[in-house]
Amino acid sequence: MLSIVLIGTGNVAQQLHAAMSNNKGVKIIQVIGRDKKKLALFNNSLKTATDFESISDADIYIIAVNDDSITTVSQYFKNISGLVVHTSGSMPLAVLPKSVRRGVFYPLQTISKDRKIDFSKVPICIEAEKSEDYELLRELANAISDQVQIMTSDQRKSVHLAAVFVNNFTNHLYHIGNQICNEAGVPFTILKQLILETAKKAAESPVLNAQTGPAVRNDKLTIKEHLALLNNKDYRDIYSVLSNSIQKTHEKKL
Amino acid sequence: MLSIVLIGTGNVAQQLHAAMSNNKGVKIIQVIGRDKKKLALFNNSLKTATDFESISDADIYIIAVNDDSITTVSQYFKNISGLVVHTSGSMPLAVLPKSVRRGVFYPLQTISKDRKIDFSKVPICIEAEKSEDYELLRELANAISDQVQIMTSDQRKSVHLAAVFVNNFTNHLYHIGNQICNEAGVPFTILKQLILETAKKAAESPVLNAQTGPAVRNDKLTIKEHLALLNNKDYRDIYSVLSNSIQKTHEKKL
Repeated sequence: MLSIVLIGTGNVAQQLHAAMSNNKGVKIIQVIGRDKKKLALFNNSLKTATDFESISDADIYIIAVNDDSITTVSQYFKNISGLVVHTSGSMPLAVLPKSVRRGVFYPLQTISKDRKIDFSKVPICIEAEKSEDYELLRELANAISDQVQIMTSDQRKSVHLAAVFVNNFTNHLYHIGNQICNEAGVPFTILKQLILETAKKAAESPVLNAQTGPAVRNDKLTIKEHLALLNNKDYRDIYSVLSNSIQKTHEKKL
Repeated sequence: MLSIVLIGTGNVAQQLHAAMSNNKGVKIIQVIGRDKKKLALFNNSLKTATDFESISDADIYIIAVNDDSITTVSQYFKNISGLVVHTSGSMPLAVLPKSVRRGVFYPLQTISKDRKIDFSKVPICIEAEKSEDYELLRELANAISDQVQIMTSDQRKSVHLAAVFVNNFTNHLYHIGNQICNEAGVPFTILKQLILETAKKAAESPVLNAQTGPAVRNDKLTIKEHLALLNNKDYRDIYSVLSNSIQKTHEKKL
């Protein structure tokens, strides 16, 4: 069984803790964090610490803190013999101290407090420097997820960027759709099936062929009318740059 | 049982035909279209016509043609006694001739040939001028869908615009995500769960709170690195206008 020390008390730490609890292959033996209130959210039977002087011995140390804090926090692990990993999509492996066995354990998912996540479906992107550390991370990842992917720091950075497009930006488009419906006095629920169907389509079939709408048809009248309907300049800009890019993308295809 | 004449042989016509076949409450008695090959795609036992001189008598005439052709096609129905409807999201009811009982029957869904659609989940937006025609359209819509929504032409136009954001534009963001993965040599499949989870989240909970990512955190370093990673100028523009709009949206909330 792999013994784990979890560093951090935020969303990622909480979700990892939930996924690793009652797991046959993994045991979290300690949670370290500076926020006492948040530490109390974790299992009472767990050893917790608010300082980095009392780190337990473990196979793997998972630093699940904000990107900006990884460097600072990881200094406390300079002389540790276990494998030290962070959970960031955008930070390279090299932000961790050279003196340790280091790696990355990045769960590729939108993580928020309120929503329970089925971690078995969350892809885990792993990186390490030694083959035995890869094996260790693979064992850890397989214990909580069905999809494990080895990737370099550069690849992970690209995947994180791609995730910003398909997750954060998509989410903002949903927000705009919601706003437009509210202003028109139409329930947003009317768009729910369309949202789900569009996502399923992209997940199942090649994305490029699935493109529909006024931009790809170059339906100038509808585009003009849509721009006139939008009274938020930012939304008009979004409409224009996306329509423009859709048209160029599909021109290239021809 | 409602008798229907379907005008058009494209995706919308084909999907409506599929949804109305073997339906207890509705019977398509004729399909009219100019494309003989496409007409052959419809049920053989159905009366089909390539000209508008031999229109059968029916309760409802559904004009499922391109937006640009609605006006032209609807001229052939000027003297008809049944209810004449079009299926467009962006066209007002008023594009149909004043001389007839007119209405709109707009299925709010991304319709493409290859994908079979469960029409019971597709919201149908209906509009008419007389209460008895509303009843007729409601009966037709209820026969194939669980979600029927009455709306004005203006509301429908707004919903169509909202659909462009949550469907067409979202789809383009998926395409960009796909491109970024391809260039990095990472399988796009790694983003599938994220795509599905983001869509489910929006469909279930208020969209505004679900926003995550570097823009809403105002994580300037990551934003800068992401822009540097994108070698397509259009994609950089999309990244910038969306990040900018996300930041303004969430500033307002504070």
